[in-house]
Amino acid sequence: MIVNNSLDEVKKRENALSIIKNIVETKGREHLFDLTGLSGGFIASPSELNLLETYVGPAIFEDALQEVGLEHMGGEKVLPLNRTSSGILATILALVKKDTNVVHYLAELPAHPSIPRSCRLVGANYSETDIFEEFSIPENTSLVVITGSTMDHKVIDEDEFKQVIEMAHEKDIPVMVDDASGARLRTVVFNQAKACDLGADIAITSTDKLMPGPRGGLMAGRRDLIDEIKIKVNQFGLEAQPPLVLAMLNGIKNFKEDNLKKSLQRKDELFDLLNSYFTNFKKTPTGVMISPEDLAKEIDFPHKLSDDDLAFVFSFILLKDYGIITIPAVGMPGASATLRFDLSTSDAFNLDLNDLTKKIESSFERLLEVIPNEEKCREIVF
Amino acid sequence: MIVNNSLDEVKKRENALSIIKNIVETKGREHLFDLTGLSGGFIASPSELNLLETYVGPAIFEDALQEVGLEHMGGEKVLPLNRTSSGILATILALVKKDTNVVHYLAELPAHPSIPRSCRLVGANYSETDIFEEFSIPENTSLVVITGSTMDHKVIDEDEFKQVIEMAHEKDIPVMVDDASGARLRTVVFNQAKACDLGADIAITSTDKLMPGPRGGLMAGRRDLIDEIKIKVNQFGLEAQPPLVLAMLNGIKNFKEDNLKKSLQRKDELFDLLNSYFTNFKKTPTGVMISPEDLAKEIDFPHKLSDDDLAFVFSFILLKDYGIITIPAVGMPGASATLRFDLSTSDAFNLDLNDLTKKIESSFERLLEVIPNEEKCREIVF
Repeated sequence: MIVNNSLDEVKKRENALSIIKNIVETKGREHLFDLTGLSGGFIASPSELNLLETYVGPAIFEDALQEVGLEHMGGEKVLPLNRTSSGILATILALVKKDTNVVHYLAELPAHPSIPRSCRLVGANYSETDIFEEFSIPENTSLVVITGSTMDHKVIDEDEFKQVIEMAHEKDIPVMVDDASGARLRTVVFNQAKACDLGADIAITSTDKLMPGPRGGLMAGRRDLIDEIKIKVNQFGLEAQPPLVLAMLNGIKNFKEDNLKKSLQRKDELFDLLNSYFTNFKKTPTGVMISPEDLAKEIDFPHKLSDDDLAFVFSFILLKDYGIITIPAVGMPGASATLRFDLSTSDAFNLDLNDLTKKIESSFERLLEVIPNEEKCREIVF
Repeated sequence: MIVNNSLDEVKKRENALSIIKNIVETKGREHLFDLTGLSGGFIASPSELNLLETYVGPAIFEDALQEVGLEHMGGEKVLPLNRTSSGILATILALVKKDTNVVHYLAELPAHPSIPRSCRLVGANYSETDIFEEFSIPENTSLVVITGSTMDHKVIDEDEFKQVIEMAHEKDIPVMVDDASGARLRTVVFNQAKACDLGADIAITSTDKLMPGPRGGLMAGRRDLIDEIKIKVNQFGLEAQPPLVLAMLNGIKNFKEDNLKKSLQRKDELFDLLNSYFTNFKKTPTGVMISPEDLAKEIDFPHKLSDDDLAFVFSFILLKDYGIITIPAVGMPGASATLRFDLSTSDAFNLDLNDLTKKIESSFERLLEVIPNEEKCREIVF
């Protein structure tokens, strides 16, 4: 075993960081290709950066975000948040009382844990279902939740979406939509309407998901509810700070529907290209992946490496030889050792997929070469 | 009454932000003087900004913050947060159970509202005192809180600090120190020890208070408790995002004890200058202030404005005529209406104090002119 424990994982990660630092310093940032899909964006001009101070920055950027955010999300007012989870917490703190019911409809279980967790915090009764026929709104319900698209990018049916909102509004119950990736996936790829345009009272999206913005949340909806929620947001420190607001603004401005559509087509293309060489790659909503177990199946001779170690060595070869960043190399201790190649973020936009395929294949061939030499593998990882 | 309720406060703040925006866009940032003492900084080099957008940026900055943060705060581990209030919430969520007691000792009431508010959220019994002799720790106490320096910069006595910690530890109860500005004020100006060095289990500071960092919170303390609190932080989206972490790192690196000390000398100078005209200004540790009540005492003719309204109108005149930003104009709803002129932040370093005094006097004369005309005052504020 090469990577045995958390300490090894930390050492591995430190090595990856120093390789990256070295590439940035000797060859330049353009020789790195961050395909983790987790990189988020921070787009800011020097003059904008000068304005980033507590009271001056928000004045400028929050105003601008109102305009750009409403265009992206619909609704009457937007509110920038530190994370989508913070927005969910604030909404539940503001709208949900102890012992009331919160019901949640989503395309596929499980729900994002921040929803039941926030309900527990205020002492509400939470229930969820992914079977439309079983969805109902009991007496004493304070909030109806809809997830626009799940963590695995499973998208809700638009008719069901509308019906749930109607059911809630017949009983005068507000509807919060967790539209983390859905605000773009539903609208751009599935041609659905914005959550607010469908009648949602509150909708929240993640500004780093499928767009070049920072990790953060953007809430939109009814002005009266947003104002009520904003009080909780300020009280508990859940708002996005000025640097985030600036990056959200520029993230939305730089969000190109075509890039998203293209990345979804391109993942099919990449999948087909890799399939002519590999047999165990799988599609994700925005790219391709291979798990350590599936990677092991690609190797047809006996060896002593664990499945995870194979993934770590592969990830380091990709990084060292081609500047391709994947999670097994840079991940925090405990992160998954699955290699994902995500095509939805900016480094991937201009990547030639034939070229990427060749680099992945050649890295794999190098992996096959070094597998018998455990000492060499250890050297690559640490 | 001009400012009657929270909605008025929001409208007032929005007006202040649009005045600021207008000054930046038409005259330039150098015509604004943020003397709130709350204007954080965002120091970042181009190469750091390039790293901000990759998966690795955060990893690099968080690593570096561990080192620099521990030096600033003491303790075994640091945790960067979106705000000090978020850190207080997370600590109480992690350590305080329903129906247990939380007791708080501070140099002067009132406490920062985030502490009682977070206790209410988990259903704990909260009590506070600023009389040391009356402080005691009842049975069934889950957390002892100490405020290092209050919102008005009143600093705790170090002996009392130590005694409260001892009392808590005798009963095996963890101590959280709200050291928002105290982490610098207490240590640099009052020569006290770091909270963690005095035995605090958790200490939190605001990275925009008396240092050139961003609005945000930095927690330090016992590794086991930090790890426990970090779970809540990640669950509810309370952590500082990468741009904030970077700015915290550089804020701490650029914190100069001498600047803080110099601002303390300059405040004496400013106080003397203002004293030749006013009679009710008071010193703060890093500047001067006049409360709404004291401001009212400066006016020797009858009028209909409330004390707070006087402060709001004064603050808006300072902003509109001279670009001087004070909290009554830009503050969040519920913020104090006291006018502070803080000399510890970068906009104040190069300010000519004679010139500043003249601007404050001339704004006050304008205030005297408009006071009889309530409609005019309303127009100035909204």
